[in-house]
Amino acid sequence: MTLQIDRRRFLKASTLMGAAALVSNELLSFPIKKSTLQIGIIGVGLRGSGHLENLIRRKDIRIPAICDIDPERIKIAQNALQKANHTKANVYADGDYAYRNLLARDDLDGVIISTPWKWHFPMAIDAMQAKLPPGLEVGGAQTIQECWDLVQTHESTQTPMMLLENVCYRRDIMAVLNMVRLGLFGEVIHCRCGYQHDLRNIKFYPGVSFGSEGKHEAVWRTQHAIERNGDIYPTHGLGPVAMMLNINRGNRLTALTSMASKARGLHEYVVEHGGEDHSYANIPFKLGDVITTTLQCAQGESIVITHDTQLPRPYSLGFRVQGTKGLWMVDGNQIYIEGISSEPHQWEQAQPYLDKYDHPLWKKYSQMSEGAGHGGMDFYVLNAYVEALKRKAPFPIDVYDAAVWRVITPLSEKSIAEGGSLQSIPDFTEGRWEKRTPDFAGGDIY
Amino acid sequence: MTLQIDRRRFLKASTLMGAAALVSNELLSFPIKKSTLQIGIIGVGLRGSGHLENLIRRKDIRIPAICDIDPERIKIAQNALQKANHTKANVYADGDYAYRNLLARDDLDGVIISTPWKWHFPMAIDAMQAKLPPGLEVGGAQTIQECWDLVQTHESTQTPMMLLENVCYRRDIMAVLNMVRLGLFGEVIHCRCGYQHDLRNIKFYPGVSFGSEGKHEAVWRTQHAIERNGDIYPTHGLGPVAMMLNINRGNRLTALTSMASKARGLHEYVVEHGGEDHSYANIPFKLGDVITTTLQCAQGESIVITHDTQLPRPYSLGFRVQGTKGLWMVDGNQIYIEGISSEPHQWEQAQPYLDKYDHPLWKKYSQMSEGAGHGGMDFYVLNAYVEALKRKAPFPIDVYDAAVWRVITPLSEKSIAEGGSLQSIPDFTEGRWEKRTPDFAGGDIY
Repeated sequence: MTLQIDRRRFLKASTLMGAAALVSNELLSFPIKKSTLQIGIIGVGLRGSGHLENLIRRKDIRIPAICDIDPERIKIAQNALQKANHTKANVYADGDYAYRNLLARDDLDGVIISTPWKWHFPMAIDAMQAKLPPGLEVGGAQTIQECWDLVQTHESTQTPMMLLENVCYRRDIMAVLNMVRLGLFGEVIHCRCGYQHDLRNIKFYPGVSFGSEGKHEAVWRTQHAIERNGDIYPTHGLGPVAMMLNINRGNRLTALTSMASKARGLHEYVVEHGGEDHSYANIPFKLGDVITTTLQCAQGESIVITHDTQLPRPYSLGFRVQGTKGLWMVDGNQIYIEGISSEPHQWEQAQPYLDKYDHPLWKKYSQMSEGAGHGGMDFYVLNAYVEALKRKAPFPIDVYDAAVWRVITPLSEKSIAEGGSLQSIPDFTEGRWEKRTPDFAGGDIY
Repeated sequence: MTLQIDRRRFLKASTLMGAAALVSNELLSFPIKKSTLQIGIIGVGLRGSGHLENLIRRKDIRIPAICDIDPERIKIAQNALQKANHTKANVYADGDYAYRNLLARDDLDGVIISTPWKWHFPMAIDAMQAKLPPGLEVGGAQTIQECWDLVQTHESTQTPMMLLENVCYRRDIMAVLNMVRLGLFGEVIHCRCGYQHDLRNIKFYPGVSFGSEGKHEAVWRTQHAIERNGDIYPTHGLGPVAMMLNINRGNRLTALTSMASKARGLHEYVVEHGGEDHSYANIPFKLGDVITTTLQCAQGESIVITHDTQLPRPYSLGFRVQGTKGLWMVDGNQIYIEGISSEPHQWEQAQPYLDKYDHPLWKKYSQMSEGAGHGGMDFYVLNAYVEALKRKAPFPIDVYDAAVWRVITPLSEKSIAEGGSLQSIPDFTEGRWEKRTPDFAGGDIY
């Protein structure tokens, strides 16, 4: 139970973080175990390559091993290593389970997993079995059981994992988290979030191709829309909100209901771009165009998550953070804080607030994070993975977060299949949420 | 069954309205039965006085009878009549059931009911029993049963009623309805709406008073927040959206779930304005600060309704209308229509669209509606009531709308009481929704 004792000690040292987010936490007092890390990468598609490029911009990372079943992606990854004056990596490419040979190496400190969603949990579980702390990309879970398997593997192997939810590190989100912790919104009552992103030309690419005929995410992502009806991608919205509501850290998600609209977007896209006679025009896409999931928290807050990826629309993660003193909405980037906003009942532009409450991490690293992808936030999520790993300190987004954020997917599928029925959300911490304290982004290290 | 035959004939004549909203419907061919109407008013509080003033601005209305148990409000109403050179009205003020004596008069053509919510259905039912078509103010229902009672009274008395949902006539809403009918958004998939209005200084007035110590709506409205936890005021949001989705007219609401956040806002307001020792600081307010209700429609659309009246926030009914071609959001007044908006994935300001698709009613009556209250929309809702009544034509917002929009309240209470359970929504039309066709605001008469 070493890890859990460490964790408790760490948490005790940082109990004040909720109230005073700007105070550096105790992480620096942990012995720095390693100054350079050897990281393996499983999956060097578009996302995995992004991680690779961000990692090798750092001086403390070596990439001795990469894994992908697509030789073209391996080539691109090797070229990137070479261009950055890194040694070429050993390659694991021989079939779906080649990654296990990568995990069997004895020179790795950690592994980044950026593969199709169905592989996430099996690979993370295998990594923990191999005592290799994984940094796992985001997505929904396939089943409730695999979330339990993930947690139980962590507990039995004492190997930590981090969910690489980059939106937790978005600059506006971190500023709002700061404002939440400083009490600007009063007691938080209600949050909204989601993934609202027109992915039609990603689910079909090139043209209306997908599956074995498609490229990039179209190879695997589109199939989910054929097989599943639920919020299949909940964490970009839920993750940031969960941190603001201290989920797993004094609070927890208790129940949800989910409703799906009809599914029209993908079919119409096929007809528009492939014609009515295209063979894909007969596919009965199962995934409703707009999925609405409403969640209840143990401390009485409610959350609405939206999944909306198949209709023409501007990108928005739809954030709203509302408390007894005011609220912020990402749509229009509007804010109202009673007693601070000059006009009662009138929105203000939020940017001056976001600037004023800019998180210390962004103050410190904004130059370094430039160009790191997705507005810089990809730097921060990897930085947290790397710095925690170097210190053998707990990851700020851990296995319990991964399990409960991602279990939303199978639970929302079940709710929708039952017409919108109420679903209990498992407590993967088995009661420990009550004593765990906020430990996400408490200082200016990571 | 005369009324229902009339209704069917009318509907048959107007089947094209969904597709071509700008074509005048057949209402003009109905014989105009009366050119001047005698209208009674039950309840001349702030809202009822507003209706009275708007009615007597018209040349076709006389107000021979008013009812209120508050002598001060009667005086204000009589003064308003006098100031407009109208004869003073007969007064019914003697107790809670004085209104029945008003209904017993034989000189009235209709009656406007603007009373506390609990009285709405009993009074409307009594009015229909008296063969007097009521124009009923909005609010939630108390019970599911009273919604059935309302419908059954209509059917047994053959007396129509209109729900006075003014937001159905808001200028932006009518323009968006026009755009929906013209297919600009493609097939509508998902809508959002609600009542988000900081009512704390209305629920408490003056100071932190309410109930017998309070004034205006504080006399009765606040008590609902003590007794009930649900969406107690759903129609300002749901009404407009229901018309866009042809609810009761080829579509229907089938099921809902509702979740409530914790209740903090009213308590904090009492403490802030009355002190911690104020006797009201111990009241256990039951109504959650934010109530989220998700609904499913027979044609596959989903709807989210929000009730949010107890926290500091700018006013917004939170509308979003989203289809296969694009969407409009009232927050930020933003729109995106694929193929029309110049930049892909980028919002445009909606106002040019709202101007272009301005509803013919607003084009025709915008001058006349100036100053009529709530941005002019109060003119239109009363105009519809009066003009339909003069023609003995069906009301555009009828008893089936009133029943199904208002039954959301007891159903959401039940869902919340059961932790967020799924509730079936009754079909008050008993199957007739399938053949009924869109008949709301189809022309430029009303």
